[in-house]
Amino acid sequence: MGRTSDAKEKILDAARSLIELRGYSALGVAEICKAAGVPKGSFYYFFPSKEALALAVIDEHWAAQEGDWKRILGGAAPPLERLRHLFEATEATLAGGQQDCGSVAGCMFGNLTLELSNQTEAIRARLQEIFDAHVVLIEAVVAEAVARGEASVADTREAARSVMAQLEGQVLFAKLYNDPRRLGPSWLNCLALLGARAPVAS
Amino acid sequence: MGRTSDAKEKILDAARSLIELRGYSALGVAEICKAAGVPKGSFYYFFPSKEALALAVIDEHWAAQEGDWKRILGGAAPPLERLRHLFEATEATLAGGQQDCGSVAGCMFGNLTLELSNQTEAIRARLQEIFDAHVVLIEAVVAEAVARGEASVADTREAARSVMAQLEGQVLFAKLYNDPRRLGPSWLNCLALLGARAPVAS
Repeated sequence: MGRTSDAKEKILDAARSLIELRGYSALGVAEICKAAGVPKGSFYYFFPSKEALALAVIDEHWAAQEGDWKRILGGAAPPLERLRHLFEATEATLAGGQQDCGSVAGCMFGNLTLELSNQTEAIRARLQEIFDAHVVLIEAVVAEAVARGEASVADTREAARSVMAQLEGQVLFAKLYNDPRRLGPSWLNCLALLGARAPVAS
Repeated sequence: MGRTSDAKEKILDAARSLIELRGYSALGVAEICKAAGVPKGSFYYFFPSKEALALAVIDEHWAAQEGDWKRILGGAAPPLERLRHLFEATEATLAGGQQDCGSVAGCMFGNLTLELSNQTEAIRARLQEIFDAHVVLIEAVVAEAVARGEASVADTREAARSVMAQLEGQVLFAKLYNDPRRLGPSWLNCLALLGARAPVAS
């Protein structure tokens, strides 16, 4: 059992790295197996298709990110400070990835959305669920800030969607310009968006 | 001459459609030629490589879009009304594409940014120039709104980048949820972002 779980983990690790570097469409199963150091037979033992592998990579990445987001957004600090921490953590993640592989890889979910959402309905549905969950987590923080009189928005759901759009858009530019610091000024724009212009104390 | 120009146009048209449907990495030169109805020899007569073709597709798309943007953002209406027209025109373009091919294709430049900017430096550089030009066009409108007291931002360049991030992020979600109407509420968020909360008259 130890060895087969190892093979599955190796395939998932290799696929995640390759998808981050080059996207999904450009990859073949043979290449993934070669990078993972496992025979091709192992691949189909664990994954009926390349799409099934992509879904597993997405799920694994989301399980980790969801934990991070809940920890950051669910802390004891005031709500807008927690939201700022999310922007800072996103910038730090992009900067760490850039240090490891020379370029900003961006957001795996955003990348796969633009690459694949029109091509496979299973992946589209999974990515929709994940972005819905992002919006729910952000909306709770926005609603808390509004209740405390620290933000002023007409519609907390739309405001949360807009914060997510801002974050995804700025991550896209961080990737394009290979510069994680793009995320810095976007926090002040996010505050403006939430009708909360005063800087939030550290 | 007539016939060779035709072939070049056919290749560009086929490549643009295929890139919008399935991205760049998944395409082969043979497939593009088949869709264009031209022999493979013609391809290499006009384009030394697939990358050269992608750059030509990008340039052609930008030439058309730049004209549209300058017309919309350079009109005689008040600045924020022109900016609203840009959001409306973007939504209309997404809706038109959805009617033609069943799904929202999104923004070609955003799609190629997330798919390719880490893979080919020539395409990254071209897309950077295009997004820089978008920001310059939006910044002029934001500065005009600020000068008229209709918007209030700390930094017009950062505000323009943020408007672009908002637009690209919301177009990403319009593609993910296959719903161009995602762009509607985002205009109100854009106004908030620019410190201009009052609705702008039609």
